[in-house]
Amino acid sequence: MPQRYRAILAYNGARYHGFQLQVADRPTIQGMVEKALFNIIHQEVRVIGGGRTDTGVHARGQVIAFDCEWQHSPQALWKALNANLPPDIVVQQLEIATDGFHPRFDAMSRCYHYQFYTAPVRDPLWDLTSWHVGTSLDPEAIQTAASVLLGKHDFATFGQAPYGDNTIRHMYRAQLHRQSEQHYHLVFEATAFLTHMVRSMVGTLMEVGRGKRSLAQFVADFEAAQRHRAASNAPPHGLILISIKYGGLAASEYQHNGNENLDTKSE
Amino acid sequence: MPQRYRAILAYNGARYHGFQLQVADRPTIQGMVEKALFNIIHQEVRVIGGGRTDTGVHARGQVIAFDCEWQHSPQALWKALNANLPPDIVVQQLEIATDGFHPRFDAMSRCYHYQFYTAPVRDPLWDLTSWHVGTSLDPEAIQTAASVLLGKHDFATFGQAPYGDNTIRHMYRAQLHRQSEQHYHLVFEATAFLTHMVRSMVGTLMEVGRGKRSLAQFVADFEAAQRHRAASNAPPHGLILISIKYGGLAASEYQHNGNENLDTKSE
Repeated sequence: MPQRYRAILAYNGARYHGFQLQVADRPTIQGMVEKALFNIIHQEVRVIGGGRTDTGVHARGQVIAFDCEWQHSPQALWKALNANLPPDIVVQQLEIATDGFHPRFDAMSRCYHYQFYTAPVRDPLWDLTSWHVGTSLDPEAIQTAASVLLGKHDFATFGQAPYGDNTIRHMYRAQLHRQSEQHYHLVFEATAFLTHMVRSMVGTLMEVGRGKRSLAQFVADFEAAQRHRAASNAPPHGLILISIKYGGLAASEYQHNGNENLDTKSE
Repeated sequence: MPQRYRAILAYNGARYHGFQLQVADRPTIQGMVEKALFNIIHQEVRVIGGGRTDTGVHARGQVIAFDCEWQHSPQALWKALNANLPPDIVVQQLEIATDGFHPRFDAMSRCYHYQFYTAPVRDPLWDLTSWHVGTSLDPEAIQTAASVLLGKHDFATFGQAPYGDNTIRHMYRAQLHRQSEQHYHLVFEATAFLTHMVRSMVGTLMEVGRGKRSLAQFVADFEAAQRHRAASNAPPHGLILISIKYGGLAASEYQHNGNENLDTKSE
């Protein structure tokens, strides 16, 4: 009898056309995992993800679920999956899911990090997973504007709703962290995110940080709830899906995925 | 009249067969810079590097020099070079060199970082520029063994001398830094390094850190000055050439290239 499995995926999104399977024959994360499962159990298995990530976007805590028949331990399936996946996709954990678990519908919140660095010249190593934004940046202005996003709002300025859903979302966290003199990341946690929402918020916040958009203008653009009021989206390679929370169950995962310093460091 | 230029290069070595031009038609850093110069000034220009980096090894502070005729400002040449180089190679600085400057012969010391991380499972993003070494590691044992390398010694255990040179080198710094719970880098600064020396030292130190080689054994293997006494080389993707020092001249570069915290943090 088939059983439902739940797994946490980490991936470097650089080579992929996003998480979700596409009509065209382009490599996607979902497609690679389904292919790996087919190689292992010789069944066509449908993989569901907890958060859609766009082309070039990374993950450390993507949650997936799938049903399959497997005679051995979850540990053995975990090893077999990693042996059948390319090196840029890694299953971090795999376990038998509770009955009816759905990674998208059951999710209570998602957490993303957007990494960027300030430097006079590009650095090809930092460039792999963070956005180069030049040197003259006002971190406090970015944090002040980010705080405006907290709470329940219409986020239509920053993205479209998939499936004709509404554009109201609840933002629990919008914080700027400075890891070193030149390295920052913005942390966003919300019930769910609209399409391109994090990258649109980051692109617009960066205009505030560069003094190209005043705080008052940012607030007005946000409240207008009109997509054309946002700045260009920040590039995808700085964005990482860090974790997805499920009613207390995923607390350990949540802690695990790079969030340990978030409660102590804030500016 | 041709003029000598000096530049600082940063690169992601993943796609390249090391710094130095090869007989076979494989992409190298030197080859890419010479090609870019040819595209700009239509002359065949020979580029000299201050430190050889192997296949897959990165740099933030590689120093190069070349002679060419150029009618415009160094600033203009700097921009033209970056416009003609692939995105994974970036010229950080470019200036007119002092007479007869030679990046290899004039160098007083080189500094490398070797990055690694401890985690139960691989992380495909950290994997881009650091070595995954599992979880049970004793950082103090690594630091104690690394300290043994300080001073003037025969480093034959850890590498071959190029050009029939001797294997005596002077190690100024061998320090372990912990950036976060799971992220470390080893800093090595020496007059010069033998072929594969940093990777060989790191591979052997990691055996000490894992308890597979005692400190006494490490010391005996080092003092034996026999290449076969070293462990396997650590993989190249964790290694970064950080800076090259020239008699006080390059102090600013040295500061610039990620070393600002090395004097205050040490364990």
